[in-house]
Amino acid sequence: MNKIITIGREFGSGGRELARNIAEILGYAYYDREIISEIAKRTSLSERYVQNVAEHRPIIPFPIHTGRTFWAVIPDYGQNVQQEQHSIIRELAEKSDCVIVGRGADYILRNEKPYRIFVYSDADSKLKRCRENSSNDYSKGEEMTDKELARRIEQINESRAEYYEFYTGQKWGCRSNYDLCVNTASFPDFKKLAQAIASLI
Amino acid sequence: MNKIITIGREFGSGGRELARNIAEILGYAYYDREIISEIAKRTSLSERYVQNVAEHRPIIPFPIHTGRTFWAVIPDYGQNVQQEQHSIIRELAEKSDCVIVGRGADYILRNEKPYRIFVYSDADSKLKRCRENSSNDYSKGEEMTDKELARRIEQINESRAEYYEFYTGQKWGCRSNYDLCVNTASFPDFKKLAQAIASLI
Repeated sequence: MNKIITIGREFGSGGRELARNIAEILGYAYYDREIISEIAKRTSLSERYVQNVAEHRPIIPFPIHTGRTFWAVIPDYGQNVQQEQHSIIRELAEKSDCVIVGRGADYILRNEKPYRIFVYSDADSKLKRCRENSSNDYSKGEEMTDKELARRIEQINESRAEYYEFYTGQKWGCRSNYDLCVNTASFPDFKKLAQAIASLI
Repeated sequence: MNKIITIGREFGSGGRELARNIAEILGYAYYDREIISEIAKRTSLSERYVQNVAEHRPIIPFPIHTGRTFWAVIPDYGQNVQQEQHSIIRELAEKSDCVIVGRGADYILRNEKPYRIFVYSDADSKLKRCRENSSNDYSKGEEMTDKELARRIEQINESRAEYYEFYTGQKWGCRSNYDLCVNTASFPDFKKLAQAIASLI
């Protein structure tokens, strides 16, 4: 059976960077946005749309009682995207040892007994990392005040928690769902941290 | 400033053993029951009594309105014991690099920026460890059924959570209060785990 590491992470905690470091040290495959590209290819939907659907829990449409039921006319690609995501994650896990970031992979692959790592940080460190990291979409955060950016980070993390809880029935970031929870604010040397984690796998 | 590691731990998770391993690798002082002995010495109370008071949140006595107020006649050593515990923990932290197990030391020493580790495990592993570990008081667990022992372990952990929350105002075992949370069921080789943690300090 392949060795699988899943990385759940708070936005702004550097989980992705840590995951990449761990994969590099262990020589494992690394999957993150690649999953979105593959879903887009298979469903013929745009990557942007897929990302949006794949990372948010659905907004449950309630019928509006005005004589007509409006909600039924909205085409529901969400379920397709989720099904593809599940299939792809399972295929990747069967292919080779790997590190998979986010997407509830810890739950999807629970029968494969992955090492489930959760990466988090404190609010100040997340803010600082977002300001410094120009590679993510929030480099436009430069135009936001600290307070606005901190609120945005919090919102993204609330949305991740909702997504995780909706699809897994488990509490996001709660220790009992993980093998290791790491506060990156306390261990800023990611190479060293990745090395320590890799030594345990 | 001395380097301080505090270890919060679920009963049955092997936190004490892991703490001892970390202290040994780093050559740090190790404090656990030694704190109880020292409090007993300073307060002239028995170790057994001190342990009971030092590890449980006080039961707040409400006056009973029957004409007389009974609660006032109970001598309150609890506060003394807690004060001594605080003083001793602070003294130990000033003396040398150290590992301190339990007793809300992460909170008491928060200004000293300790490495705050929380050690936990799943229910089955805790049960197994308790059965195997004849050095703790629960070797008498042999007389209990699995269900009874599991319930006892749960009760002890509920009591630890209550104690921690009462004295710190923080949630016990919640990731945001720690730098690292480790599930020992997933990393049964304690020497290796201690080595990995020590490499981060």
